[in-house]
Amino acid sequence: MAAEIAEQPAVIARLVARSSDIAAAVAAVRPDPLRGFVLVARGSSDHAAVYGRYVLEYATGVPVALAAPSLQTRYGVVPRLDGFLAIGVSQSGRTPEVAATMEVLQAGGARTIGLCNDVGSPLAEACEVVVPLGAGPERAVPATKTFTATLAAFALLAQALGDRSTGDWPRLVDALAVAVDDDTGARTAAALLVGAQRLLQVGRAFLYPVALEAGLKITETTGVATNGYSPHDLRHGPIAVADAGVHAVCFSSPGPVAADVERAAADLTARGARVVAVAERGGDVPAASALIAVPSGTDELLAPLVHSVRAQQLALHLAQARGVDPDRPFGLTKVTATE
Amino acid sequence: MAAEIAEQPAVIARLVARSSDIAAAVAAVRPDPLRGFVLVARGSSDHAAVYGRYVLEYATGVPVALAAPSLQTRYGVVPRLDGFLAIGVSQSGRTPEVAATMEVLQAGGARTIGLCNDVGSPLAEACEVVVPLGAGPERAVPATKTFTATLAAFALLAQALGDRSTGDWPRLVDALAVAVDDDTGARTAAALLVGAQRLLQVGRAFLYPVALEAGLKITETTGVATNGYSPHDLRHGPIAVADAGVHAVCFSSPGPVAADVERAAADLTARGARVVAVAERGGDVPAASALIAVPSGTDELLAPLVHSVRAQQLALHLAQARGVDPDRPFGLTKVTATE
Repeated sequence: MAAEIAEQPAVIARLVARSSDIAAAVAAVRPDPLRGFVLVARGSSDHAAVYGRYVLEYATGVPVALAAPSLQTRYGVVPRLDGFLAIGVSQSGRTPEVAATMEVLQAGGARTIGLCNDVGSPLAEACEVVVPLGAGPERAVPATKTFTATLAAFALLAQALGDRSTGDWPRLVDALAVAVDDDTGARTAAALLVGAQRLLQVGRAFLYPVALEAGLKITETTGVATNGYSPHDLRHGPIAVADAGVHAVCFSSPGPVAADVERAAADLTARGARVVAVAERGGDVPAASALIAVPSGTDELLAPLVHSVRAQQLALHLAQARGVDPDRPFGLTKVTATE
Repeated sequence: MAAEIAEQPAVIARLVARSSDIAAAVAAVRPDPLRGFVLVARGSSDHAAVYGRYVLEYATGVPVALAAPSLQTRYGVVPRLDGFLAIGVSQSGRTPEVAATMEVLQAGGARTIGLCNDVGSPLAEACEVVVPLGAGPERAVPATKTFTATLAAFALLAQALGDRSTGDWPRLVDALAVAVDDDTGARTAAALLVGAQRLLQVGRAFLYPVALEAGLKITETTGVATNGYSPHDLRHGPIAVADAGVHAVCFSSPGPVAADVERAAADLTARGARVVAVAERGGDVPAASALIAVPSGTDELLAPLVHSVRAQQLALHLAQARGVDPDRPFGLTKVTATE
């Protein structure tokens, strides 16, 4: 897991270098007019799809739905999808229900794109266009480089299909390099959080999927039950669990939703919870008692990749601090063959 | 909370009695062709919207997206929604971001329907058509009758807009009456689960939103961190938290996904977790060590209302067993004014 975390600047740089190839491939299946997207994924890939949901709607201004695969695989619903682009995501490309769902969506009229790390996989075969993540073999059970590569692929798709730039890619690659070179902040925070029995992750908009993924990653590597929330969903009930026994990790980037996360952190602290911020500066989340710093100046739409690296480092150090092998925790296997 | 749980057969019967009025109102805003739906909600209403997502796509065969309100309220994205129906849901109608998001979706070309319990609310004013839930005042903080009324409203909308019947409504009302009259199963299960520090809820397809809502309800009324999963998402990682310290509540109805839930319960039990089933018969989830029985014979699409009543009874008895006032837990307030 540690080695694969370290590969991320190179993985993302290689993907960015292929951005014009990706744009050309996608142009070939873009419906005209483009009416909407349907995204299909499970697990970590589903969290990446939540990021895709934000970045695609932001860039293209058309609605994005996350598929409910059971409707296609169990109830035989073939939705009417003329004008829709369906995007299936699977690191291995071997989750049978993702490939099966893509086939039904195509039968319903959608054009199809597959994002996966194995171009010979069933998902790749089920789709008209494949965007290879090119992350190389991922051996640790917790997805790391394939997760950030999927985020990058979604941002590149959004750039190719929409009319808004997603940001400065070379600057992102530099920030990733800085992040993987120094994990002191995550190591220190892990020491602070190691005894936590209840742990929340908070992020909004482009950082909401990072909060979801951080929760899954920490659960996978430590066995501790944890959960990602947007600040707004947190206030609609789950804030009830926050007291002195709760620790929270709050992800924040400068931008229109920073104040929402700042306020959630203050509410949690007021209830006695201990808050760790993942942010550019401690002052961005004043209520936090510790900071995992991210390099400053990354564009808001691309910053989730850097925050994801910090979340992975935190999960890794939490696992080690709890005596769990982060590469192969709890008998989980790499390909989850849900049908 | 107990009194409001008991009102549900009458609330649903009143709503069903208005089904032809609802169908007529909805026909007036149905785009032709209907290309898709966007649903807008938070908290319990968002879980009801997940049910809406399944039942609307099942009945109409067009894609359903759940909105990400921050794109509209913080980033100024006005999506292109010609041919889309947007449905906003808020029990009080006073969650400002839900009304604000609906206004932006309408500006983008969507036709708009509001589901709410207060027809004089900002949400009702923001929408072209209002479907009043007619549940009467809801005083307890945890939503109960407005939640099941919202499920019923979505099923009635699906019936009006699609070409598949959602099921036998009088039979549902009878099942709800049986369920509210006898909460012995929930009381017994609460005694079994009272010491749980980690609790999972599992449901698939039409019962997935019930698992999500059961998790929120139990968190709200007991302060115990809990989480709803589909069996498939559970296997993509969170299964790691399951051991002898974990308790799980598995929701099952006869139908195409019953075997998925049965297998998840078996996997959890094999890891040492204790499983309570909410199902027609204990044999439906053989791995369960306790059963909260639901009346048999309710159609699969409507059964989630009966399962929701069982989840509410469980949350109520868990709160009482832990010495929490279920009507006003942990300083939560009834209207959550997220902007």
